[in-house]
Amino acid sequence: MSVTAAAGFRAAGVRAGLRAHGDRPDLALVVNDGPAHTAAGVFTRNQVKAAPVLWSQQVLREHALRAVVLNSGGANACTGPDGFADTHHTAEKVAEVLACGAIEVAVCSTGLIGERLPLPSLLAGVDEAAGALAADPDAGTSAATAVLTTDTVDKQATRSRDGWTVGGFAKGAGMMAPSLATMLVVVTTDADLDAEVADRALRAATATTFDRLDIDGSTSTNDTVLLLASGASGVTPDEATFADELREVCAELARGLQADAEGVTKRIAVTVSGAASDADALVGARAVARDSLVKTALFGSDPNWGRIAAAIGASDARVEPETLSVTVNGVLLCAAAAAVGDRSKADLSGRDVTVEVDLGLGEGTATVLTTDLSHAYVEENSAYST
Amino acid sequence: MSVTAAAGFRAAGVRAGLRAHGDRPDLALVVNDGPAHTAAGVFTRNQVKAAPVLWSQQVLREHALRAVVLNSGGANACTGPDGFADTHHTAEKVAEVLACGAIEVAVCSTGLIGERLPLPSLLAGVDEAAGALAADPDAGTSAATAVLTTDTVDKQATRSRDGWTVGGFAKGAGMMAPSLATMLVVVTTDADLDAEVADRALRAATATTFDRLDIDGSTSTNDTVLLLASGASGVTPDEATFADELREVCAELARGLQADAEGVTKRIAVTVSGAASDADALVGARAVARDSLVKTALFGSDPNWGRIAAAIGASDARVEPETLSVTVNGVLLCAAAAAVGDRSKADLSGRDVTVEVDLGLGEGTATVLTTDLSHAYVEENSAYST
Repeated sequence: MSVTAAAGFRAAGVRAGLRAHGDRPDLALVVNDGPAHTAAGVFTRNQVKAAPVLWSQQVLREHALRAVVLNSGGANACTGPDGFADTHHTAEKVAEVLACGAIEVAVCSTGLIGERLPLPSLLAGVDEAAGALAADPDAGTSAATAVLTTDTVDKQATRSRDGWTVGGFAKGAGMMAPSLATMLVVVTTDADLDAEVADRALRAATATTFDRLDIDGSTSTNDTVLLLASGASGVTPDEATFADELREVCAELARGLQADAEGVTKRIAVTVSGAASDADALVGARAVARDSLVKTALFGSDPNWGRIAAAIGASDARVEPETLSVTVNGVLLCAAAAAVGDRSKADLSGRDVTVEVDLGLGEGTATVLTTDLSHAYVEENSAYST
Repeated sequence: MSVTAAAGFRAAGVRAGLRAHGDRPDLALVVNDGPAHTAAGVFTRNQVKAAPVLWSQQVLREHALRAVVLNSGGANACTGPDGFADTHHTAEKVAEVLACGAIEVAVCSTGLIGERLPLPSLLAGVDEAAGALAADPDAGTSAATAVLTTDTVDKQATRSRDGWTVGGFAKGAGMMAPSLATMLVVVTTDADLDAEVADRALRAATATTFDRLDIDGSTSTNDTVLLLASGASGVTPDEATFADELREVCAELARGLQADAEGVTKRIAVTVSGAASDADALVGARAVARDSLVKTALFGSDPNWGRIAAAIGASDARVEPETLSVTVNGVLLCAAAAAVGDRSKADLSGRDVTVEVDLGLGEGTATVLTTDLSHAYVEENSAYST
């Protein structure tokens, strides 16, 4: 399903030999057969952008894409002009096999920063992928699998209504601006959209889904979210309806990223309410979700609310201790910045943890999803490039 | 030595029974016998401040202290009006045994947030400490030991010149605004200082020492740095000279905190140079020093410079990839945001790691000290309150 669920799309995932180890597929191709080729994209805010991000930002200015080629096995970030040329050659190769222009081909890469990709393998992989393109669910799953790095499962989501469909895949383990485990997302739809609608809907959807997933506070050089619309359903949905469905697909993919994040043992939702503004709530929720001491406490199933109070107090959100309360898994543990009852009543033995902080100052609210900081996270990230 | 090295000071460390486990001392008393009682203080910027911080900030308005009482075994943070009353009673008890005013007594606490301290034990401990006060080095060490929590060794430093001395102790494992392992520092001097000089020198010294130590990005509710000047040497040093010596003592104590930080296996100095401004350099250095992926890579002795480039690129410091270089342990690994030579040439097997990022944009420079993110850090912090 996923990227091939909507009419007008084919996909493939093949093994191009880009990874040093293992026999997993590592190159994916997603093709929009039209009739429309509307596209929108959202990219990392990191000032150090990978070559494929610089390329894809440039081609997206036309608001049209025929294809997206994605690879794992190397981020092609911090590779200089040679790395940019590699991305350019890859797009040209895809354009050649699909008989379109390179300007209609987006490129996404993920893996280690600072190493060149093996271009001959990459170009041969494009040929192989072009030959394997198909519109069936297995083809979508092959593509979704080929982009995985430290992910352990593929992440796909699909929704259909009123004769049109939105579907997509995601890889990665971080926020919109996550970590070395770059987030790459491709969403397709057969709705007939104009470029402005596609762009607005994508920005709105990512702002409250991928943008509010924060695994480790680190911002990748490669994060990319693409929306491709084929118009093949012949239906132009109401903008608000389309935006809602797109948001649901993005939210499901974001939850999938959270559940498969590096070293995860707890899926944590941090909600800040009663903030002076929504912006303040988001700043506070992100600070709690990023706090190493909160994350290690939750790894230990420890309802250590004092660390939560300290984390939000240290943030740039406005906090008044007199009106600060903290609730963990539905149990109020702190009111007016002081203990209420017995912290051991909050049972954190399960995989899901909700942290609710009420600042008692206004109507602002925001939720950020994160995970715990575990031994497995340290293990995985202390042994990645060597 | 440390707080008793300067003339005019006595100290003691005793076991008041504030800790749930163990038989380590947990209450320290430092007394300034004058003739002067000049004092200055710097406190946490956390909006959620512990009761002893609220109290000590208030008494410091008079720029005079006769004594500081410090306890481990409980932070007395998030304890409401009752917790503040506990701090007030503690200061009154110290004032009673020393025959001074409570307004001349600062209070510092460290330990778990959100729990009341056992006041009877605390007050009995003050009596015992007053009986044990002495001016010898052992007394200073007893006080330096009584405030330790997750610290494994006491941290002390002393410098003397021209007939006057500066010495102090520190506990904790974080930046000026560190973590649950609150940073508490008491520095004494027998120099004869007026309050303005003491305040200026303390702020200047902390700004480039404790403020640039960042273990885990978390900001305690209890951080306190106090300077007490007895004037007992009869010497009024030149302000710049005093500021230099005070800075050296603070720097030595900060290095001690770094070396004994929770879970530390690497002592890391991150220097950003060539920044658009010193402020930008500090923002960038702090971002690199806080990045979980950089810290786990260094734990794994992995010169993964791509994570360093990604971390500074994601920071609020101005970065241009074209002029960005990264040097690790003296080996240039990245220039113009691309690989230079073989990353394996940077040997990270030792305990000390230097990370140098040159932004190539201006004259701004700053250094932040941090540590790696290890299994021991996760272990220690996932099992603290339970």
